Amino acid sequence: MRSIGSACSKNIEKRLAELASFNSTPDQGITRVALSSEDRDARNLIKHWMKELGLNIHEDEIGNIYGRLEGSDPSASPVWSGSHIDTVLHGGKFDGMLGVIGALEAIRAIKERSFVPRRNIEVVVFTSEEPTAFGMGCLGSRALTGELTLDKMRKLKDQDGKSLLEGLIKLGYISESEKLTKSGPLLDLIRTSGEVHAFLELHIEQGAVLENLGIPIGLVTSICAPTDLQICITGKQAHAGATPMDLRQDAMMATAEIALYLEHITINSKSPHTVGTVGKVMVHPNASNAIPGVVNFSIDLRDSNFKIKDDILKDLLIFIERLQIRRKIHTTIDVFNHDKPEDCDSEIVDLLRESCEMRQIPFHKMVSGAYHDAMHIAHFAPIGMIFVPSKDGISHSPKEWTDTIDIVKGVNILTDTIFHLANS
Amino acid sequence: MRSIGSACSKNIEKRLAELASFNSTPDQGITRVALSSEDRDARNLIKHWMKELGLNIHEDEIGNIYGRLEGSDPSASPVWSGSHIDTVLHGGKFDGMLGVIGALEAIRAIKERSFVPRRNIEVVVFTSEEPTAFGMGCLGSRALTGELTLDKMRKLKDQDGKSLLEGLIKLGYISESEKLTKSGPLLDLIRTSGEVHAFLELHIEQGAVLENLGIPIGLVTSICAPTDLQICITGKQAHAGATPMDLRQDAMMATAEIALYLEHITINSKSPHTVGTVGKVMVHPNASNAIPGVVNFSIDLRDSNFKIKDDILKDLLIFIERLQIRRKIHTTIDVFNHDKPEDCDSEIVDLLRESCEMRQIPFHKMVSGAYHDAMHIAHFAPIGMIFVPSKDGISHSPKEWTDTIDIVKGVNILTDTIFHLANS
Repeated sequence: MRSIGSACSKNIEKRLAELASFNSTPDQGITRVALSSEDRDARNLIKHWMKELGLNIHEDEIGNIYGRLEGSDPSASPVWSGSHIDTVLHGGKFDGMLGVIGALEAIRAIKERSFVPRRNIEVVVFTSEEPTAFGMGCLGSRALTGELTLDKMRKLKDQDGKSLLEGLIKLGYISESEKLTKSGPLLDLIRTSGEVHAFLELHIEQGAVLENLGIPIGLVTSICAPTDLQICITGKQAHAGATPMDLRQDAMMATAEIALYLEHITINSKSPHTVGTVGKVMVHPNASNAIPGVVNFSIDLRDSNFKIKDDILKDLLIFIERLQIRRKIHTTIDVFNHDKPEDCDSEIVDLLRESCEMRQIPFHKMVSGAYHDAMHIAHFAPIGMIFVPSKDGISHSPKEWTDTIDIVKGVNILTDTIFHLANS
Repeated sequence: MRSIGSACSKNIEKRLAELASFNSTPDQGITRVALSSEDRDARNLIKHWMKELGLNIHEDEIGNIYGRLEGSDPSASPVWSGSHIDTVLHGGKFDGMLGVIGALEAIRAIKERSFVPRRNIEVVVFTSEEPTAFGMGCLGSRALTGELTLDKMRKLKDQDGKSLLEGLIKLGYISESEKLTKSGPLLDLIRTSGEVHAFLELHIEQGAVLENLGIPIGLVTSICAPTDLQICITGKQAHAGATPMDLRQDAMMATAEIALYLEHITINSKSPHTVGTVGKVMVHPNASNAIPGVVNFSIDLRDSNFKIKDDILKDLLIFIERLQIRRKIHTTIDVFNHDKPEDCDSEIVDLLRESCEMRQIPFHKMVSGAYHDAMHIAHFAPIGMIFVPSKDGISHSPKEWTDTIDIVKGVNILTDTIFHLANS
């Protein structure tokens, strides 16, 4: 497969900028929360691009978008490639978007050279990979595994109290009648082993490993899985001056202890890939002269080793239970998800490596600390992931940046490997 | 002086409820932020009540309202009594309001019995006792001491970035031209020793000391003073999955360490009255899967002993300086105020005690953990404070409550003592 030209690299830059214009926080990074009006507009743009490429479009009940290039053998299971287009709050323009735009460019490269692959190739846009909207990530890919029941879709709510189900009904993905009658998983969504031949995802690294090594391509061997907790601490709101220290039930101090304990146990983990984050904190009443009565906060715990992560979670829950008694507070803990890490398919990693070698592009095999939709697709299909470097290792930030020269390398390797898999 | 009757106690209840109706958070406690539209409407109600009582009203440039009952000797320095009508976020209906309504009831009792005091008696409503709006408390009383310069009034800003000065101009207390030309303190505001004969403030205790003792009246001997800090920690916003623990510059974990260190040094203080609170925390970007890059938070430190409080502040600042290096973060620290504790006037405390004894009301002499406008008035006039019990010790909360039977006792003692001082 020939390399994509400079026109294509300009096209990638243009499309990244176009998608970035759907943004609810102009001048403060990119914010495109899943199922928001910005997300809806961005989805329409993606479908417009798919139509321009002559792809057959369909969407499923969780809002995943599929654009299909027909292969010569329609009975063969398809090759999938894609990512997501929703963002965190005040994020960047590469995370997710690159994997969608990259897959479209790969299809363009295949089409422009008049190659007709044996298998169908589908560009997939997954709904709400970020947990920004509903507190749980990878909703679109997770639903394909059957994990996301209608009950859960009613329970997952955004900050305005609107459920995932309501959001999907509003955007027309689910009909109102289904909301009222069903309760289990959305059966039409579920994919089983063999239905998809392979899935490839191009993504920015979101860390500084590649940059530090001076290597433009990362080939992912396994994906760390998140465990997401939402914790609510209820102490006693009281006057910051009139309440002696020994009579306090301070929800903020309890939060601080839990945060530092999380840091302590992740730093001292037996796995080098354990990380723990308290990223979202909401204090009530949030006044300088009131002892916080309630604090709601998130815990994001990840590891490439499920057993180690599971042990750390248990350790943390015991700590919180004891803290409740010591600080006379009450806690409620929602474990949103406790996902299993997944390995990439070794044969696909070999194909990716061969493309790198053929194109004389240096590569580095690595573990992905960030999770991706690919992790859930791995439940029913072999997966592969290509990383390109993140400047200063920064992601989930307005400063997120990847040089076009590296993006083009990633798209070329993606194109080679999609085409190879689509003819296998 | 005879006691106020049941009609008056009904009036107090009615007025507390009327003031509580000016509320920006109905069903979630009382929120009436200083200089907001709710505050403006409540000010108009107070002035209406003052007019009904036949008081002469004037207002100063910081927005303090004075309602004067004329005495027989206009050349004698006046007796002041009052408090504030602004609230914390989601607060109660007693804190501050009781001292204003109580002073008006005291004047009504004096007038209804056709007593004409020698000195003028002024009911004073101080602007923004709570730091809710501008991060610093007691703005109205503080301005009378000359501490609040126009420069500072430009620097103090609310959460929308609007300065105290702009707020005062908007409500018509300061003319636009003054904003442009002046820079020092508002000289017309400053009061010096001898200008005010005495100041009395009736207030809810906001702690549980009186309730635990089963005593309805607290006579304050000294007032703990606050030190208010606003701290901004800048770390590095990064991906919660892709950033190993040893490469993090997590602003939230740094905040947690500072909070717990504050708790540690206040608990281990040599003074029994040292308290420290982290009440307000704003995390950026506040997303579960992003390592917080910036955290802004408040520290409220109080003590009845200035030297001990000053040493604790120095200790804390050294800790933060070292933490900056250890955690590779940057901090900016604004020490908004570092106030000195004040004693109540022993002669006024004696007068209050005599009223209690005459009325056979049990009382308890105590230190006020909470600060009050009286603390600043003490710079230029002798002060006294009367506390009434707070149910469960709760204040700055929708659950704030004081029984009317105790309020009436407080108002009676206030009336006796105002009248005595106004004739001395």
